[in-house]
Amino acid sequence: MSKGRLTIPTDENFVEGTKKYVERWGADAVRDCDGTELPKNAAELAEKVYKTYFVVRGDNDFAYAHDEYMQNIALISERHTAFSDTLEIDLMEKLFDQQIRVNTTEYKKYWQVFDRTTGEEISTWDYVGDNKVRIFQAKKMHEYTVNFFGYNLWDATQVYNYTCNNWTVTKDRCYDPIYPEVLEHILQNLDEWMEKNPQVNVIRFTTFLYHFFLLYLSGVSQKLFDWYNYAMSASPAMFKLFEKEYGYEMKLEYLLDKGTWANQFIIPSKPLQDYYDLVQRFVSKTMAKIIDKVHAAGKEAMMFWGDNWMGAEPYGKYFAEMKLDAVVGSVSSGTTVRAVSDIPNLKYKEIRLLPYFFPDTLNNDERSTNALLHHWAIERRAILRKPVDRIGFGGYLSLADKLPNFCATVERVANEFRTIYDTMDNKAPYCSLKVAILSYWGKEKSWMTNMVSQDAPYPITGGVLGFLESLAGLPVDIDFISFEDVKAGRLQEFDVVFNAGVAGTAFSGDYYWKDTKILELVREYIANGGGFIGIREPSAYEYGGRFFQLSDALGVDVERGKSILLHRHNTTVHADHFILRDKVNPVDYKGGLDHVFANDGAIVLDIAPPPCSWQKSVKMAANEYGKGRCFYTVGLGYNAENTRLLYRAMLWCAHKEELLEKAFASNVHTECHYYPASKTYALVNNTAEEQKTTFYDIDGKAKDYTLAPNEIIWIKE
Amino acid sequence: MSKGRLTIPTDENFVEGTKKYVERWGADAVRDCDGTELPKNAAELAEKVYKTYFVVRGDNDFAYAHDEYMQNIALISERHTAFSDTLEIDLMEKLFDQQIRVNTTEYKKYWQVFDRTTGEEISTWDYVGDNKVRIFQAKKMHEYTVNFFGYNLWDATQVYNYTCNNWTVTKDRCYDPIYPEVLEHILQNLDEWMEKNPQVNVIRFTTFLYHFFLLYLSGVSQKLFDWYNYAMSASPAMFKLFEKEYGYEMKLEYLLDKGTWANQFIIPSKPLQDYYDLVQRFVSKTMAKIIDKVHAAGKEAMMFWGDNWMGAEPYGKYFAEMKLDAVVGSVSSGTTVRAVSDIPNLKYKEIRLLPYFFPDTLNNDERSTNALLHHWAIERRAILRKPVDRIGFGGYLSLADKLPNFCATVERVANEFRTIYDTMDNKAPYCSLKVAILSYWGKEKSWMTNMVSQDAPYPITGGVLGFLESLAGLPVDIDFISFEDVKAGRLQEFDVVFNAGVAGTAFSGDYYWKDTKILELVREYIANGGGFIGIREPSAYEYGGRFFQLSDALGVDVERGKSILLHRHNTTVHADHFILRDKVNPVDYKGGLDHVFANDGAIVLDIAPPPCSWQKSVKMAANEYGKGRCFYTVGLGYNAENTRLLYRAMLWCAHKEELLEKAFASNVHTECHYYPASKTYALVNNTAEEQKTTFYDIDGKAKDYTLAPNEIIWIKE
Repeated sequence: MSKGRLTIPTDENFVEGTKKYVERWGADAVRDCDGTELPKNAAELAEKVYKTYFVVRGDNDFAYAHDEYMQNIALISERHTAFSDTLEIDLMEKLFDQQIRVNTTEYKKYWQVFDRTTGEEISTWDYVGDNKVRIFQAKKMHEYTVNFFGYNLWDATQVYNYTCNNWTVTKDRCYDPIYPEVLEHILQNLDEWMEKNPQVNVIRFTTFLYHFFLLYLSGVSQKLFDWYNYAMSASPAMFKLFEKEYGYEMKLEYLLDKGTWANQFIIPSKPLQDYYDLVQRFVSKTMAKIIDKVHAAGKEAMMFWGDNWMGAEPYGKYFAEMKLDAVVGSVSSGTTVRAVSDIPNLKYKEIRLLPYFFPDTLNNDERSTNALLHHWAIERRAILRKPVDRIGFGGYLSLADKLPNFCATVERVANEFRTIYDTMDNKAPYCSLKVAILSYWGKEKSWMTNMVSQDAPYPITGGVLGFLESLAGLPVDIDFISFEDVKAGRLQEFDVVFNAGVAGTAFSGDYYWKDTKILELVREYIANGGGFIGIREPSAYEYGGRFFQLSDALGVDVERGKSILLHRHNTTVHADHFILRDKVNPVDYKGGLDHVFANDGAIVLDIAPPPCSWQKSVKMAANEYGKGRCFYTVGLGYNAENTRLLYRAMLWCAHKEELLEKAFASNVHTECHYYPASKTYALVNNTAEEQKTTFYDIDGKAKDYTLAPNEIIWIKE
Repeated sequence: MSKGRLTIPTDENFVEGTKKYVERWGADAVRDCDGTELPKNAAELAEKVYKTYFVVRGDNDFAYAHDEYMQNIALISERHTAFSDTLEIDLMEKLFDQQIRVNTTEYKKYWQVFDRTTGEEISTWDYVGDNKVRIFQAKKMHEYTVNFFGYNLWDATQVYNYTCNNWTVTKDRCYDPIYPEVLEHILQNLDEWMEKNPQVNVIRFTTFLYHFFLLYLSGVSQKLFDWYNYAMSASPAMFKLFEKEYGYEMKLEYLLDKGTWANQFIIPSKPLQDYYDLVQRFVSKTMAKIIDKVHAAGKEAMMFWGDNWMGAEPYGKYFAEMKLDAVVGSVSSGTTVRAVSDIPNLKYKEIRLLPYFFPDTLNNDERSTNALLHHWAIERRAILRKPVDRIGFGGYLSLADKLPNFCATVERVANEFRTIYDTMDNKAPYCSLKVAILSYWGKEKSWMTNMVSQDAPYPITGGVLGFLESLAGLPVDIDFISFEDVKAGRLQEFDVVFNAGVAGTAFSGDYYWKDTKILELVREYIANGGGFIGIREPSAYEYGGRFFQLSDALGVDVERGKSILLHRHNTTVHADHFILRDKVNPVDYKGGLDHVFANDGAIVLDIAPPPCSWQKSVKMAANEYGKGRCFYTVGLGYNAENTRLLYRAMLWCAHKEELLEKAFASNVHTECHYYPASKTYALVNNTAEEQKTTFYDIDGKAKDYTLAPNEIIWIKE
């Protein structure tokens, strides 16, 4: 039995129980949790003692005494059409008055009123009190909106639980460290807190300064949710700092962008890029001061990736400057594991596994055990490629204590994790290919492409998330690159480049695909032998008679209603193609796209039934282009067969089909990972059923194995 | 038994049979057909004797002796990417060498080579013989195309039958009356023909000068089909005439538009508008000369709407100038009936019913009878609104003679048609509403909206064709209007305005929806009480935070991947709404659109099942806007329930729900048409089954009826 690399929750009411599981599971860290207190003697329980710390909330006496230090939010009113030449817009319409209060400070300087029908900003308006803006000389039948600042009255994370559970404690209000007085107060609070919590040696920050974007219609109903949005970092003070640093005025419209809040699907304008840079620098600089204090006290600083994480982009330019020791992330997939495990410049990285030890998620031994194994199987794939340094659980340990099978499974998972970690020993696993994902965001949004709410599936993006989950556990080396990286000549580094997204978004690339230089470089990379994989609307930008600008390379394009006159004859499916050889069931595309057609010469791999023969909709195709190869699919959900199909597609695109049966497991429900440094293979069963598979070593030598449910068989050369 | 208004085919080998059916069916016209000759005594068989006449084909001795008079086609090569700095493009790639020959006349003046990657026309190219254009100094990885003229070697209609049937006669070649010598020859030919055919008193032109656009890959396989395209009217000579008339050069690119051939889904550029005008004037002027001769000979001139109809737009500005007596159209739906019956400025209009009397379509008594009744039921709806003056059949009468039930049914249909015609007596039927269909094309494309090949359904346009078929037989007065009509203040004439089409097309309206004036006028029309119905992507133009620019009025918009952060809460279906009250089965939207959401306040009428709760896809919605009302649907197939739903939607939008049960039949499979002049109702069973229905007279008085299959019950007040 091994020990370490495991964090478990503890509780002042469950000290003896904690000791038991520290021993049994080999935990070396204990943590507190919402609604629990660490035992006084926590330091005796484990080497590491974590405690949650909020930087900008918690001190409600201070917060409520200083309205002037309240955080703000960049807001836009609902749209209204003028039916006469005067129009009044109620700024609080469809907002929750316990979350938002209109901030009228210097409103004539910061607020903006737009005629959305013409696109022009207008000046014939005023604030008339009672949350209302009146527009004079409105143009009849034009639509108007008001951009404004709202005070952020209530910590967005607390709202839902508070309202649902009828809490009555003071509502947490966040203060803004953009004000030097607030920062000073925060540093002082931290000193006091550390003094009061000597047993804590890891401060678990939840998180830092500005919350991700979450607006409510009421206490229980959300207006919007955007895990990646900076709207809650904005304030008149931040805008003043912006002007000072960049020499021009920051405008609410740059952040609000006609009501889209310039979310990460939209390529940011130059001012917004500057704004992101400012907030990231501000957060890093501020946190560096705070973390210096933590280190001076001999403790470690850990970032919980959640809540107030805006400006602390783990793959951003200024992240390292905070000098964090660790990041802990809540994970539910291989993608979210990799988002944590790939972060550079940290001492260690940890993931919190599901299920939570909460009454609603941990109340049945069989269901909880299955949930743990189900998630573990998915996350383990990613760990086997790039491990985090630690795993952990949250909630109330006493609840787990009632479930014997569950506790035995935690023990098994913890031991398995430590075995994986030790076997890999920080050495790179074998990778057959070098792969890049190309989007506007590149490196900065590593493992966050096409996401709104971590990896939650939205119908329109469903088809462009699955491939990332497949990649998280495949034996390929993965990088995230931008169009600027393309211009810098980086394509040559890769065997296969992906472009996946909805047309017109930052992930597909939008107007970058009108850039002749980009087109030349990408086509040249492919024509010279590169592999390219497009999902949904790769290289989409309607121009010059194409929708997919790389249609010549991809072999497909989309009928958008303007060329129906042309008959599309290439509709024969090549079902025996290398890419399809492990396919048994129909491909789950997770929605995808209609009206795709194949150019003559392309290799159609799947097609939808025909309403009329020359207008069948292609679902999947491959194409040879110069010395290179491309693969296209309208979408790809995550499952075992699709993962194999994707791996085959990558190998085919890279002209490396012969690598398939190297360090490989034949059955799609099993996978093989190879660690050359220790000459060890992990042969993995990703399912809860027994699986038979043929294992191929790195030289292609085959041997049959039978794996127990969820088993890893370790094979030494 | 009635007589007249019926044309039947005859044949020199079936004279006695013809007499029998002239008598039995009450035919007053006989016609020839492909592969048959009129009997010598045709004039004794019926009052009217039709004979097919080709203006620009048939005289192959002349055609083959004069290559210089051959017709041309505006063509574009396949797209090719330059992999080095020289690129050769084979102009005949994917063209059929028996249909096309490259026309190198003044190629440096007319041909164009485009770099499609930059969008620029280039001059570094030359024709190097053997159908090849060589591009020098090509930019590597750029795509190129060549615009060029091809000779039109073979009449496009003849190709398929000829190839399939292994014919060996001379291939029909068309000559171009743009050359005065050709026109002179045509006029001379006509004189001779009329002299040789004295018994013919109706010349059935098939059609006039330029074929609709039909390109082949081989004799049996089509490259494209566009019933509405002018590519086959183009020639160096026509371009010279253009320059003379308009003072600037016509360019192939205006017609070819990056390979879309600027089909009717694309709003034409100004030069192309001028070009259409030129061809229409030329065709009208030329045909006027020809038709003058016909009239001088005491005969009538009839246009068969098909084959070479380009430039003879029945709803165009110059159509009347030809002084045609009649149009005959082949029909397969109510829409195609109305396309014929609504043509202004003619002595009479005729439709050719299905099935053809051909061996492959008329060989089984029961099937042929059912086919006739099936089509008649659909077409009769349209005739009951706006009758044509005559009906007819084509093919070999001797084949019909073998099918006794079929012949009895023809008799029934002919009698029923004459009864309808006499009852309507050219008086307007009762209309509850005045309705307009708004598109770029307006009047000119009446009953041709969203079509490529008459009313053939393509997947992407499937959802925007059905409503037109429904309208063809509904008791509403229908007009087709353009955005210029909107600017001219014409919206006020209508109770309900439709906008239906795919985003970015001429039918939806494309950039007209960025025109502030248009938006003001349409919104004002609705806000003042007008009704508006949008289908698929009405008012679509991404701008200002909207995709549907009329989203405020329509109550819906489309999630295009840039505002997924916003939760859409309006997802409750109002199943008891007035519009839905006759709905029993799920609506057949014929494809349609995903990711549509309803604005707050809109009335959701149907929604697709949810992948996640705030991202359900709205299928149908209604909305109140000022004093007006809107209805939206993602698409609408033609069937009885959808037709009723559409009628209800129109009445609701017009605030005229109380008109529903006036001159009305309750059962959706039955309809009621009212003729106020004769105070007569037609209560119609549109199905081949018995139907029970409640009839409501114009005052709303109800009475139950049972209708035999396909029956019309005539009710006199």
